[in-house]
Amino acid sequence: MLSIKPDELRSLSERIFAAAGTPAEVGDYMAQSLVTANLMGHDSHGVIRIPRYIGQIRDGSLKPAATPSVVKETETTALVDGNYTFGQVAARFAADVAIAKAKRYHTAAVGLVNQNHTGRIGEFAEMMGRAGLFGMFITAGSRQWQGVAPHGGRKRVFGTNPFAFAVPAGERPMVVIDWATSVLAEGKLQVARAKKATLPPGVILDGEGKPSTDVEDFYTNGGVMLPFAGYKGYSLALLGEILVAPFLASDVYGPGPRAYGSFVVAVNVEAFRPVAEFTPQLDALLDEIKAVPPAQGFDEVLIPGEPEQRTMAQRKQGGIPMPEETWQKLLETAKELGIDPAPRGD
Amino acid sequence: MLSIKPDELRSLSERIFAAAGTPAEVGDYMAQSLVTANLMGHDSHGVIRIPRYIGQIRDGSLKPAATPSVVKETETTALVDGNYTFGQVAARFAADVAIAKAKRYHTAAVGLVNQNHTGRIGEFAEMMGRAGLFGMFITAGSRQWQGVAPHGGRKRVFGTNPFAFAVPAGERPMVVIDWATSVLAEGKLQVARAKKATLPPGVILDGEGKPSTDVEDFYTNGGVMLPFAGYKGYSLALLGEILVAPFLASDVYGPGPRAYGSFVVAVNVEAFRPVAEFTPQLDALLDEIKAVPPAQGFDEVLIPGEPEQRTMAQRKQGGIPMPEETWQKLLETAKELGIDPAPRGD
Repeated sequence: MLSIKPDELRSLSERIFAAAGTPAEVGDYMAQSLVTANLMGHDSHGVIRIPRYIGQIRDGSLKPAATPSVVKETETTALVDGNYTFGQVAARFAADVAIAKAKRYHTAAVGLVNQNHTGRIGEFAEMMGRAGLFGMFITAGSRQWQGVAPHGGRKRVFGTNPFAFAVPAGERPMVVIDWATSVLAEGKLQVARAKKATLPPGVILDGEGKPSTDVEDFYTNGGVMLPFAGYKGYSLALLGEILVAPFLASDVYGPGPRAYGSFVVAVNVEAFRPVAEFTPQLDALLDEIKAVPPAQGFDEVLIPGEPEQRTMAQRKQGGIPMPEETWQKLLETAKELGIDPAPRGD
Repeated sequence: MLSIKPDELRSLSERIFAAAGTPAEVGDYMAQSLVTANLMGHDSHGVIRIPRYIGQIRDGSLKPAATPSVVKETETTALVDGNYTFGQVAARFAADVAIAKAKRYHTAAVGLVNQNHTGRIGEFAEMMGRAGLFGMFITAGSRQWQGVAPHGGRKRVFGTNPFAFAVPAGERPMVVIDWATSVLAEGKLQVARAKKATLPPGVILDGEGKPSTDVEDFYTNGGVMLPFAGYKGYSLALLGEILVAPFLASDVYGPGPRAYGSFVVAVNVEAFRPVAEFTPQLDALLDEIKAVPPAQGFDEVLIPGEPEQRTMAQRKQGGIPMPEETWQKLLETAKELGIDPAPRGD
């Protein structure tokens, strides 16, 4: 395992994006977004994605200089066409539209079609929290990738369809909720596969719909990933699918039914009370939860978002741990683009 | 186990509510709402609650003739004071306010404070679905009852904080999602206790924060219920708590911090596409999911809402199964109110 300095990683990422035809402002944002995912410990949504994004730029499915646009709107709603730029760029745009509308009209719902991979969607919920809003950000749709079966089934019909939520922070770190509706993120299955490790029970079924702990049953034998918590996680996966495709009319404005997209809801705290009165009450609630004594096997109760804040503090100091293979693939991607991978300033 | 005709149950319930000082229109709605919960198989949220509601009327904590009122609003938002009428009546009022606003302004968020037990909250999500909206209805807050620990903790800080969602239906039954953020509803623990049955693993911890399957560890030994799916369910329980108390200012408009309340979000399909174009696309997605072959141990894949529709069809024909004890308590409640419990028309 290597340890890479965040600045080095960001600099290399910026240069890769620039060399692949990304406008500087966009590439710099992308580098910052991905490195932040690494800093927070979500390595599967960090710079490991860059070689694939560059591959998509080459094959034309990702247009690094495209800009998202609003194709339809009311005072409180908008449909955003991502125009196949980076998913993060489109998601940030959609969150900005939701923020502007919710600041003015108190509530907003924004849809996003024609997007690429959106990365760590907690980022876009956080944007709404920082703007003084309750924000909900869902990315779903299975046209891009299907891996997850409905509860009780043995065919892949869903993506991992993540949900994220945030509210404005007071003294304590922001409450940021961000998880997949599958038991595990697919990145964790890839890690198990690379290590030839067995999976915990309850994560996948084999090709015949029977429980399995052999990750190859998922990758080579027609198996499926399971939604979390049975019908509860399944129902959220389905809800996400409904909201991003039939609801947004992805069959009209996107590439067809079941398209990959995002659905954003924002509600302004100020419609109910001043943010400055909300946050002390929130902190008091969080204090009460932090004071709960730990159950067997735990050291403390954590607030959603707290593990990421801690990992970020550690990694800003100690560097970002990275498997040799991930780093080598980044360097190869850089070299293919004619970049001398020695970081700027060395 | 008895089998009670739905009409008989509704008639008896109406008479009980009327005798306890409930206006006829309100009592008739309450009877219909509770019997519908029974018809759908959610017996823990059906007429079994009546003796307790009547007890609350007696002790003054439920005011059967009170009417909810809007205490604060913008075009797209409202804070509703339930004024301690029946929780169902207040929740229906809040959903109606959300519907009216979302039909006019496309999105709405409505809060509800000073409420009583809201029953089966899927009903209020369904109202929004029938009105052509995506609806989200959350009831949370732990002033009334605490049973659920945060993930990693061993102290009761949450209620079962249920979430419900619905979207408009086409040819297929409406997609209605409605579940608690605890592993099991507390009613199921009561059933296990009455039968002296052991619980499945993963439902409760004992008073020392260790896993237990003995339901008495919850009721008499200081144990806790667990949130579903560990930190995922916990994060939703916390989100519900935040949205109904600090967010709605329950400390200002309600009985204090951590009060019991509801949070409603509605988004108009028509802002994105005509409902008549949404529903065929939804049905096509549901058809695809229904066509998924079953996993081992399952007969078929079910759509959220489908089990309830089936149970309702059966129970409308075959009657509502009811434990002798539940029925006797209803009859006792009726007699205490001076009602001859022979159903009207007999």
